Amino acid sequence: MERLIDELRKLPGVGTKSAQRFAFHILRASDQDAESLSSAIRNLRQHLRLCSICNNVTDIDPCSYCSNATRNPHLLCVVEEPTNITSIEKTRSFNGLYHVLHGTLSPIHGVGPEHLRLQNLWSRLADAVEVILATSPTVEGEATARYIADELHRRSNSLRISRIATGVPAGSDIEYADEVTMTRSLENRREM
Amino acid sequence: MERLIDELRKLPGVGTKSAQRFAFHILRASDQDAESLSSAIRNLRQHLRLCSICNNVTDIDPCSYCSNATRNPHLLCVVEEPTNITSIEKTRSFNGLYHVLHGTLSPIHGVGPEHLRLQNLWSRLADAVEVILATSPTVEGEATARYIADELHRRSNSLRISRIATGVPAGSDIEYADEVTMTRSLENRREM
Repeated sequence: MERLIDELRKLPGVGTKSAQRFAFHILRASDQDAESLSSAIRNLRQHLRLCSICNNVTDIDPCSYCSNATRNPHLLCVVEEPTNITSIEKTRSFNGLYHVLHGTLSPIHGVGPEHLRLQNLWSRLADAVEVILATSPTVEGEATARYIADELHRRSNSLRISRIATGVPAGSDIEYADEVTMTRSLENRREM
Repeated sequence: MERLIDELRKLPGVGTKSAQRFAFHILRASDQDAESLSSAIRNLRQHLRLCSICNNVTDIDPCSYCSNATRNPHLLCVVEEPTNITSIEKTRSFNGLYHVLHGTLSPIHGVGPEHLRLQNLWSRLADAVEVILATSPTVEGEATARYIADELHRRSNSLRISRIATGVPAGSDIEYADEVTMTRSLENRREM
C-alpha cells in the first residue's frame, strides 16, 4: 500500500492526501478495474512511439491524423509539442496534417536545429501547398519559426509559408495588452 | 480634515487608510504644494474638453496629436476610449492620428451608432488612406468594428480598412490560448 502511495505521489499535482485517496479507491475497486489500470499504464509505455511521418506520439504508425483520408494533406501545421495538437484540434478550424518538432531552438540551452525533428519535415514538402508555423510567440518559438521559414524558402519556391497571428486575445480589452502584443497586433492587422 | 478624507476616499482604489495618509501629507505640505494640487484639480475640469477633430480629451483644441505636423494625417486609428490612445502610443509603432468613439455599440444597454462620436469620423475621410479599427476584440468591440467597416466601405471605395490582429499574446505559450483566440490566430495568420 505504501509503495503504491509513493508511486502515485509522483503524478503532477498529486500530494500525499490525494495519493491515499487514489490508493484506497484502487483497493476497493474490482479486480478487473485494478488490472485494467495496471495494464493500461504498462501498455502505454510498451506501445507508444512517434509517428514516422509527423512525430506525434501514437500507438499506431502512421498516427490517426496522418492516416486519416478526410484531412487535407497539402496543409501542414508545425507545432512544438504533441500537446499543441490538442489546442489546435479544439478550434475545429484546421483540417490539415501536423508536424511535431519536439522542442524549440534555444542556443542558450544548446538546442540547435539538429536537435529538432526537422529531417522528416523537409521530406514532406513535395505534397505541401502551405506550411503554417504554429510555434508559440515566445523568443524561442519565434526564432524557431524564423529558422524554419528561411529553410523552407530555400528548399521550395512555390510553398506558402505562414505564421499564426500574435495579438490581443479574444474577449480581452486592449487596455490590458502589453506593448509587444499591441505592436504585433497593429503590425498583423488585416483588411476588413 | 474629515471632509477631505471623505473626498479622497472616492478615488478608485483608495480606502480610509490611504485617504488619511493623503490628507496628513497634504496637511504637512507647503502652502504652495497644497494650492498647486487644489488648482490642478479645478483647472482640469475647467479647461478640459474634447478635441473637435478626434474627440480625445484635451486642454487645447485641436489636441496635441491632431495639431502635430510630424504625424501622418492619412492614417487614422479608431479607438473606444481616450485611455486606449496611451496603449497604442506606448508601442511607438503608430504615427498616424486617432479617433475616439467614447463607447462601443451595445444593443443590450441601448447604445446604438447615434450614441458614438461617429459624425466627425465620416467628415475626416477625405484625407484618409487607411483606417485601422482598434476597438477591443470583445463582443461589443467586434460589433462596433464591423459596423464602422461597413459604413466606411459604403462611404468610400478607395479607403483601406483594417482590423488589429486577434491572437496569442507575445511571450505566451499557445497551450494557454483559449479556443476562440487560437481560431483567430490561425485565421489571421500572415505570410512569412
